Amino acid sequence: MIGIYPGSFDPITNGHLDIINRASRLCEKLYVAVLINERKKKFLSIDEKLELIKEATVDLENVEIITFDGLLVDLIKDRDIDCIIKGLRAISDFDYEFQMAQLNRDMNKDAETLFIMSSPEFTFLSSSAVREIYAFDGDIGDYVPYCVKNKLENKKK
Amino acid sequence: MIGIYPGSFDPITNGHLDIINRASRLCEKLYVAVLINERKKKFLSIDEKLELIKEATVDLENVEIITFDGLLVDLIKDRDIDCIIKGLRAISDFDYEFQMAQLNRDMNKDAETLFIMSSPEFTFLSSSAVREIYAFDGDIGDYVPYCVKNKLENKKK
Amino acid sequence: MIGIYPGSFDPITNGHLDIINRASRLCEKLYVAVLINERKKKFLSIDEKLELIKEATVDLENVEIITFDGLLVDLIKDRDIDCIIKGLRAISDFDYEFQMAQLNRDMNKDAETLFIMSSPEFTFLSSSAVREIYAFDGDIGDYVPYCVKNKLENKKK
Amino acid sequence: MIGIYPGSFDPITNGHLDIINRASRLCEKLYVAVLINERKKKFLSIDEKLELIKEATVDLENVEIITFDGLLVDLIKDRDIDCIIKGLRAISDFDYEFQMAQLNRDMNKDAETLFIMSSPEFTFLSSSAVREIYAFDGDIGDYVPYCVKNKLENKKK
Amino acid sequence: MIGIYPGSFDPITNGHLDIINRASRLCEKLYVAVLINERKKKFLSIDEKLELIKEATVDLENVEIITFDGLLVDLIKDRDIDCIIKGLRAISDFDYEFQMAQLNRDMNKDAETLFIMSSPEFTFLSSSAVREIYAFDGDIGDYVPYCVKNKLENKKK
Amino acid sequence: MIGIYPGSFDPITNGHLDIINRASRLCEKLYVAVLINERKKKFLSIDEKLELIKEATVDLENVEIITFDGLLVDLIKDRDIDCIIKGLRAISDFDYEFQMAQLNRDMNKDAETLFIMSSPEFTFLSSSAVREIYAFDGDIGDYVPYCVKNKLENKKK
Repeated sequence: MIGIYPGSFDPITNGHLDIINRASRLCEKLYVAVLINERKKKFLSIDEKLELIKEATVDLENVEIITFDGLLVDLIKDRDIDCIIKGLRAISDFDYEFQMAQLNRDMNKDAETLFIMSSPEFTFLSSSAVREIYAFDGDIGDYVPYCVKNKLENKKK
Repeated sequence: MIGIYPGSFDPITNGHLDIINRASRLCEKLYVAVLINERKKKFLSIDEKLELIKEATVDLENVEIITFDGLLVDLIKDRDIDCIIKGLRAISDFDYEFQMAQLNRDMNKDAETLFIMSSPEFTFLSSSAVREIYAFDGDIGDYVPYCVKNKLENKKK
Repeated sequence: MIGIYPGSFDPITNGHLDIINRASRLCEKLYVAVLINERKKKFLSIDEKLELIKEATVDLENVEIITFDGLLVDLIKDRDIDCIIKGLRAISDFDYEFQMAQLNRDMNKDAETLFIMSSPEFTFLSSSAVREIYAFDGDIGDYVPYCVKNKLENKKK
Repeated sequence: MIGIYPGSFDPITNGHLDIINRASRLCEKLYVAVLINERKKKFLSIDEKLELIKEATVDLENVEIITFDGLLVDLIKDRDIDCIIKGLRAISDFDYEFQMAQLNRDMNKDAETLFIMSSPEFTFLSSSAVREIYAFDGDIGDYVPYCVKNKLENKKK
Repeated sequence: MIGIYPGSFDPITNGHLDIINRASRLCEKLYVAVLINERKKKFLSIDEKLELIKEATVDLENVEIITFDGLLVDLIKDRDIDCIIKGLRAISDFDYEFQMAQLNRDMNKDAETLFIMSSPEFTFLSSSAVREIYAFDGDIGDYVPYCVKNKLENKKK
Repeated sequence: MIGIYPGSFDPITNGHLDIINRASRLCEKLYVAVLINERKKKFLSIDEKLELIKEATVDLENVEIITFDGLLVDLIKDRDIDCIIKGLRAISDFDYEFQMAQLNRDMNKDAETLFIMSSPEFTFLSSSAVREIYAFDGDIGDYVPYCVKNKLENKKK
C-alpha cells in the first residue's frame, strides 16, 4: 500500500510525527506531502518545513517528503498512490475531513482516505497552538520534535 | 406557505439547487435571497450571481430571486414570509444554524426556520469547494448547474 | 402543505406542544401520529396518549390525531402527506434524525422531512426525563400540559 | 497489510459490503470477523450470517470470513493482523469508535484502527434499519445484497 | 465550595478517580454519591461499590461517600451543596450532560453543574469497557484502582 | 476557590454576564480577564471593554477586572488562581475548549478548567452576533447589559 499524508506542517508537531510513524508501519511507502499555498501567509517557508520534516523522520526509511500544489486527486493519479492518510483529533476534524474525503473520492474513485485517530496525548495539539505558545515565549519542547524547537529558538535570537 | 432561502451562492451549486427544488414543492412561493455583504470579498458579483441563479431555476415558476442586505428578520416582516429554509449537511452546519435560527426567532417570534437535510450525494459539497477545484483547474461539472460551469470556464479564457 | 408529526408521546411534553403549535401555523393540516409499538413497554396506553394529546391541542383546529403502526412512508403515501415534521434539540437528535430522514426519502422520494429547532427553554426536555421526575415524586408541572400533570397525579392516588 | 473488519452483520448490508470492497483493495488479506455474542438476542444465527457474508463476498479472493468471541486485541495478536478496519457514518459512530480504537491500542500497541468513511449513499443505512423495514414488510432490496433479500423473504413464507 | 460527584461507579475506574482527585482540590468538601437504581441490574452491589470507592479515595480527607436514590436536586437542597461535578470525555457525554445540567438547574436554580474534561489518557475509559474486558479475561490493571482489580480477580476464583 | 474567566468581551453580552454571576457565587474571588490581542482588529478598545465590564458587574463584590496578554497559564501561576472558568454553549465550543483545557493543563498541571453550560436563553448569543445586529441597526437591548446598549447607541450618533 502506497500512502500519502498531506498537510501544512507549519510547523510539524509531535502529533503529526505520531501519525507518520504509525502510518509508515502500515504502508510500503509513505509520502509526506507539504501543501504549497501561496494565498495564505505562513509561519515557516517551504524550505524550512521540508528540512524540519526530513530531520524529524530521518529514521523512517519508507517515508519520502514532497511538496504539492493543486488538487490532491491529481497527485494521487500521477504517483499511483493507494490511499490518503489523515489524522482525526476531534469532532470538528471529523466534519471537515469527512467532506474532503467524500469530495476526493467523488473526483477520483480510487482516492481512498484512511483515518487514524490521534493518540490521546496529542488530541489537543495543533500547529497553531504551537505557534501561539512560541509567540508568547512559552516552552514548546513537549509538542514538537527537537529539531523544530531548536530551529524556532534560534530564530528568536 | 411563503418561504425564503437565503445564502451567498458564490456560486450556486447542485446542493443549493437540490434544496431549492425540494423547498419549492412545499411552498406556494419561495424567495431565493442573495446576501449582499460589502465586507467580504466575493468570487462572483451580485449581478453574476442573480443571473446564474435565475438561469438554474428557470423552470421553477414559484421561485423569485431577490437580494438582501441587513437583517433577515426585517426582510421577513416586510414581505410576510412564513419561514426561512436552510439546508443542513453536517454537524458544523447544525451548530451554526441552530444559533442563527434561535437568534432570528428571538428577534421576531414569527421568523420560523425549517431545515432540510442535504441529499446524501451533496453532503460534501460547498461553494468554497467548488471555487477551490476551479482554481486548480479541476472539473466542476458534477457540482454546479451547467450555466455556472459555462460561465466560469469562459472567465478563464 | 399537509404535515405529519410522528412520535411516542409517552407522555406529550411542553416541548412537543411547542413544535405542534409552530408547525400547525405553517401547515394547512397537521397530523399528530402516535406510534403503536407493541415491542416496547410503555408508560401510558395508546388510549391515554390519544386523550391527552387531544386535550392539549384542543384549540388547534387544523390538528388531527391519529395512530400508526408500520412504516411512516406508507402512511405518507396513503394520506397524501407533503412532509414529516421533526423537532431537533441536540446533536444526538440530529444524528439519528438525519439517518431516518435520508432513509425515508430513499424509500419514498416524496417523503420530505422538515426540521424545527426546539425553543431554547425546551432543549433539555424529553418524555423520559418527565417519567424520571414523576417516578421520584418531583414536580412535572413546568414540563407538561396541565392535563398530563393532572392525569399522572391521579394515577398515583 | 493484513486487515480485520469486525462486526455483528445482523444482517450484512450494502453499507458493510461497500467497506469490505474498498478495504479489500488496500489489504493483501482481509478478515471479515463476525462477533459471537451470546448475551444479545440476534436476528440471524451465526451460521446464517457466515453463509450470507460468504455469498456476498464470493468474488473477493483475499477476503476470509471468521468468527470471534472475546477481545479483538487477542485475535489480532494470534493472527498477526496489522490493522482493524472500521466504517464511519456519523458523529455517533465517531464518538464510540474513537473510544474503542483508543482502548484497543492501549491494550495492544500494535492494534491500529483505520477508519473509512461510508459512501454518501450508505450513510443512513444500518442493520437495525434493515430489520425494521423487513418487520413492516417494506422493500429491503436496495439496502442488502441479493442473497440476504432472498434469504429473508424465504423466512417469511 | 461543597461539591457532589454523582455516578454509578460500576466499578469505579481510574477515570473517575482522576475527576475525584482534581475536584477534591477545588472543593472544601466533596461528596461522591453512588446512585441506587433498583431498576437496572448491576455488576457490583451497593456495598461493594461503597467499599471500593472508600478504599480508592482513602487519602482524600475532604471526600465523603454517600448513596442516593431519587432526584439529585433534592439531595443538593438537603445538604447545602453548591455544585454538581461531572466529567466530560466525549461529544456524547456533552449532549446528555448538557440536558441533565439544564434540567437540574430548571428544577432548582441553585443546582449548578461544573464540568471537568477527562485527562487525555482516560477519554476512552468507561465502567462498561472495564466490565467487558473483565468478562473476556483481559487485564484491567491499567484502568481501575488496585483494590478494584483485586476484588474482581477474587470473584473469579 | 479563586477563579478566572478569560475572554475578548467585544462587547460583553448577557451571556457572559450570566456566567460571571453564576461563577462569582462559587468562587471567593473571580477575575474577569480581558485578552489584549494586538493582532486582531477589535470593535471596542481595551479601555471601553474594561469600563463596560466594570459597570455591568458593579454589584458583584468579589469580581476583579484585569487585562492579560500572553499565556493564560503564566497568569494563573502569578496570581495563585485555582481554576479557569469557561462557558459552553454548543458542540463547536466544546471541541475548541476541550483542546484549550487539555493544552493549558499540559503546560501547568494546576491550571484546571471548569465549564459551566450557558443558560438555555443564551445558547444562541455571541459577541459577533451582537456586532452584526448592531451593524444593521437592529435592537441589541435584549442581548447586552444596559450600559453596553447605551454606549453603542451613542457611538452611532
